[in-house]
Amino acid sequence: MRNILVIGAGRSSSSLITYLLEKSFTENLKITVADVSLKLAKDKIKNHANGNAIALNIFNDNERTIAIENADIVVSMLPAHLHLNIAKDCLKFKKNMVTASYISNEMKALNEEAITKNLIFMNEIGLDPGIDHMSAMKVLDAIRAKGGKIILFESFTGGLVAPESDNNLWNYKFTWNPRNVVLAGQGGAAQFLQEGSYKYIPYHKLFRRTEILKIDGYGKFEGYANRDSLKYKEVYGLDTILTLYRGTIRRVGFSRAWNVFVQLGMTDDSYTMENSEHMSYRDFTNSFLAYNPNDSVELKLRHYLKIDQDDIIWEKLVELDIFNKNKKVGLKNATPAQILEKILSDSWTLKEDDKDMIVMQHLFGYELNNEKHQIVSSMVCIGDNQIYTAMAKTVGLPVAIATLKILNGEINTPGVQLPIKKEIYEPILKELEENGIIFTEKKVAYLGYNPENVNG
Amino acid sequence: MRNILVIGAGRSSSSLITYLLEKSFTENLKITVADVSLKLAKDKIKNHANGNAIALNIFNDNERTIAIENADIVVSMLPAHLHLNIAKDCLKFKKNMVTASYISNEMKALNEEAITKNLIFMNEIGLDPGIDHMSAMKVLDAIRAKGGKIILFESFTGGLVAPESDNNLWNYKFTWNPRNVVLAGQGGAAQFLQEGSYKYIPYHKLFRRTEILKIDGYGKFEGYANRDSLKYKEVYGLDTILTLYRGTIRRVGFSRAWNVFVQLGMTDDSYTMENSEHMSYRDFTNSFLAYNPNDSVELKLRHYLKIDQDDIIWEKLVELDIFNKNKKVGLKNATPAQILEKILSDSWTLKEDDKDMIVMQHLFGYELNNEKHQIVSSMVCIGDNQIYTAMAKTVGLPVAIATLKILNGEINTPGVQLPIKKEIYEPILKELEENGIIFTEKKVAYLGYNPENVNG
Repeated sequence: MRNILVIGAGRSSSSLITYLLEKSFTENLKITVADVSLKLAKDKIKNHANGNAIALNIFNDNERTIAIENADIVVSMLPAHLHLNIAKDCLKFKKNMVTASYISNEMKALNEEAITKNLIFMNEIGLDPGIDHMSAMKVLDAIRAKGGKIILFESFTGGLVAPESDNNLWNYKFTWNPRNVVLAGQGGAAQFLQEGSYKYIPYHKLFRRTEILKIDGYGKFEGYANRDSLKYKEVYGLDTILTLYRGTIRRVGFSRAWNVFVQLGMTDDSYTMENSEHMSYRDFTNSFLAYNPNDSVELKLRHYLKIDQDDIIWEKLVELDIFNKNKKVGLKNATPAQILEKILSDSWTLKEDDKDMIVMQHLFGYELNNEKHQIVSSMVCIGDNQIYTAMAKTVGLPVAIATLKILNGEINTPGVQLPIKKEIYEPILKELEENGIIFTEKKVAYLGYNPENVNG
Repeated sequence: MRNILVIGAGRSSSSLITYLLEKSFTENLKITVADVSLKLAKDKIKNHANGNAIALNIFNDNERTIAIENADIVVSMLPAHLHLNIAKDCLKFKKNMVTASYISNEMKALNEEAITKNLIFMNEIGLDPGIDHMSAMKVLDAIRAKGGKIILFESFTGGLVAPESDNNLWNYKFTWNPRNVVLAGQGGAAQFLQEGSYKYIPYHKLFRRTEILKIDGYGKFEGYANRDSLKYKEVYGLDTILTLYRGTIRRVGFSRAWNVFVQLGMTDDSYTMENSEHMSYRDFTNSFLAYNPNDSVELKLRHYLKIDQDDIIWEKLVELDIFNKNKKVGLKNATPAQILEKILSDSWTLKEDDKDMIVMQHLFGYELNNEKHQIVSSMVCIGDNQIYTAMAKTVGLPVAIATLKILNGEINTPGVQLPIKKEIYEPILKELEENGIIFTEKKVAYLGYNPENVNG
């Protein structure tokens, strides 16, 4: 039997491990799940005959090297900064490796040695990065194959709550790391290309510069710009591109309301607030408003951010209880971002029966025979439950499929890489379709970057 | 003759050196001015009989130690991060030292050794920090001496253009380092106290939360919050304070217009712009606005930031020529902040006959015999010309006066310190008055923090 070592048994590993266990009889696999918590590893294996749960402290060199030496291939589902020691062991013991993380500079530096040893270190093969690369490259390569010149690429991804569980005014719940949601967009201006012009949006304007997208059967969404769009020019070989934009998807209206928190300064993670533990939610809100003994926190906020009396933004704020005098923050030496996360978690935590939803959409514009064309490719994936979430499926299944294909020699080009070659993305996308992760492509009239959707 | 070594012959050293040269006959002084540029040092000495200009590379240990060994006291007018090697030499050769910079942690760490060796390392004795400390402590100590309980301290300082040279719509010109003006307020939220509540303003709201102040004979000004107000609670011993705020002064209306640059993202210094060298001023402005082939840069900007057709902000922007197609940026790999500085420098550079102006105002609130009182203390200093600017006078004169008083043993408590003790500030403020740097104190009705100036 061939031994697949999966390190990390967190939320994103459930679909991955279940896929491999299901294939274990026909493919002759043993699945070893290693986690610092043996219980977590055991929960994922569920006493499966071909599963094996072990406790593993990856900082213990002895434990780690034994586990890796005994494996035929290693999957690391740990946070990105923890991959490196595992990768070095994989080089030492000549094991292939798979991760869903962006390739770090340290990982990149192992490329030459991996090639020399004929090893595959496949990265960025989860959802985003992962499915985004594969589904985009499939269409880009097809356009190029028929001689098209690519002039527009916009790509949006979002983790949302499924329509059937969508029951708050924000049309949003935390389906992944809440901290990342609170800090999203920080760290520098968003940079992208629109019709040949470089454009820059500072963080404090990011949520007021959204783009609208539509997905058949699911209605309208909005996207705000990611920081890193420009790097895809090189990654995808988009030399002739005029419009290049990557964004994060929310339901329409989310960003305009979220902007209230940004404007107030509630998403700041760079300083701790005085007396945060004993502060009420109302005190927290009032900290960002000028002192005035004659006015309410409510009116000060409305006036400061010019929120009209009948603006739906207001109902969204009230729903989160940010004016509550009696609810205490209860966090010591907390930053504004940590306190906001706490307040949002009261309202946005998934209930037991809630389902999540992953939405992805790419827009491709190209010129062929002096005519301009546009293709829209969209994917929606709904979670089964709180274990097999849409996030777990879309992150874990491509990792699992790639792992088995590498083990079986179907993917065999060595080196530190991401899934942008046809030999990789084509079979994986096919098998994702069989597992319900399906992109729908359609041709539409070419509009270019056209925020008002005005024709001519 | 006693040898005073002044290291650094930049703009802020002119009044300092002239003061010492004027005192040199009666006080028996030799003034050695050291700078990396011998010409600059010579320009400051102007062939004075008791002056001596030397070329000094402070990174050359030999040159530096010889100069310091030969001095009786050392004044460093270099940027703050360059003081440390000089301070260490002063410890080694047992010399007193004076700087106008904030005490760094490294400087602070020398305190014990300085005390052991009976040396005075006087810092923060320029304008801000410097005159602000002394003029504030004088009033604070007087209030405490009569048993008053201090409940409010607000302090504002600004470097502006003198009324007679004030001839642009912004009522502003660069009288100091333009780069610092462009980056002002960045690096974290402004934090302060208002009537017992901690308040926080993020950078992107800083210029919309100004306070108004009035100075007799000079009219209205506005102040935006500095980042560091809270640290003065400890420095000035303001244990019972309810309102504590430090701000930077501009003419009324400046901040509201400056906010346009902040909102667009033009003050960002964290990334370089594509093709910055060949970009026109208009291209630069357009980089921060969405692409739209049907609308002008002007209308896109008006709409984005909701600037009414008749708003004076617009005239201010036009005055700076930010919509000019023909003016090129001409800076390679420049950040938005660098480009903005270039554009502003076209309009805001002082002309040869222009004079600058320093404005400082403190508000003190206190309780005495169950009554609340308020004192306003204000100072305005106008520059003589482009050499003896108000900035050079207010930074250099307190340094010069302190240096001579230390040399003469009138200031004699050893250690790394700032001028908050009566024995220091009292004689120095007195001599500053004789040199035209005069604070006017008056009692006013106590209003507390009261932005609308509404009584009762």
